Amino acid sequence: MALSMYQVTTPVFVRGLGVLATLLAKGQAHADATGVAHETMLAKRLAPDMLPLSRQVQIAADAAKFAVARLSGVDAPKFADTETTFAQLQERLANTVAYLESVTAAQLEGSETRSVTLSAGEFNPTFTGEGYLLQFALPNFYFHITTAYDLLRHQGVQIGKLDFLGPM
Amino acid sequence: MALSMYQVTTPVFVRGLGVLATLLAKGQAHADATGVAHETMLAKRLAPDMLPLSRQVQIAADAAKFAVARLSGVDAPKFADTETTFAQLQERLANTVAYLESVTAAQLEGSETRSVTLSAGEFNPTFTGEGYLLQFALPNFYFHITTAYDLLRHQGVQIGKLDFLGPM
Repeated sequence: MALSMYQVTTPVFVRGLGVLATLLAKGQAHADATGVAHETMLAKRLAPDMLPLSRQVQIAADAAKFAVARLSGVDAPKFADTETTFAQLQERLANTVAYLESVTAAQLEGSETRSVTLSAGEFNPTFTGEGYLLQFALPNFYFHITTAYDLLRHQGVQIGKLDFLGPM
Repeated sequence: MALSMYQVTTPVFVRGLGVLATLLAKGQAHADATGVAHETMLAKRLAPDMLPLSRQVQIAADAAKFAVARLSGVDAPKFADTETTFAQLQERLANTVAYLESVTAAQLEGSETRSVTLSAGEFNPTFTGEGYLLQFALPNFYFHITTAYDLLRHQGVQIGKLDFLGPM
């Protein structure tokens, strides 16, 4: 075996949330430069029944937080999803990263075989830790970061693919 | 160590490309039901300087193909990026999956330490296999699948988050 569960969780999530923080900062700067109200940018959706930019950020953060919490069993802080400004969303990301970094590699050891059951209405799958991470948590995490990127690009923010892939 | 390089590549990519194939099929059905020309749907972009849906599909397939090729050293088929129809894009996905499934777990063994250098204009990072997979290949793969999803949703296709996360 080549990779630990820690390697495929914490550094990946911390990196992705850092990318998201940078994307949001560029969005805020673009809004200020072009006179777009922050609340307008954060409320933008790609379809009427999709979630707005602010929720994409909250859910990306939670995707990382819940993944590490479920795999490690270490209680995670609760956030009320009340952020309405760029500054509050940045704080949410920072608080999430602080939690992620508080969980040690040892606390994630063996989590590939841990049983994880999700509960979302009629959707209640049970996974092994490995399946949960690779089939659910990581795609879900990247879904929300990418959709945040797409929402910013759709509003004219000057970001590019390397902003998404992050500093190498 | 908990996970092999194979576990974090081939099944993940095969699953993601299967999800993308299903999303595209639903897009095609929606176009037919609403009288939207297929070429119009496939040419849609979220920003004037972003790539259209058809390219998102091609690049998602290549992200998976190049990841396995670079990590395993097994030559991959070349595709000319000439697909202009849903049927041709489905064939591209199927041909990519066939290549991915032709590479064995043994051929990926040890690839976490393999040196991978990318060459894209001025962007020429060198990674370990592990860094390449986790910091570049997987985020890049999910970026293009998610953007394809977002492009379909933006055009009114009735798909939801569970279509993206795929059958569990």
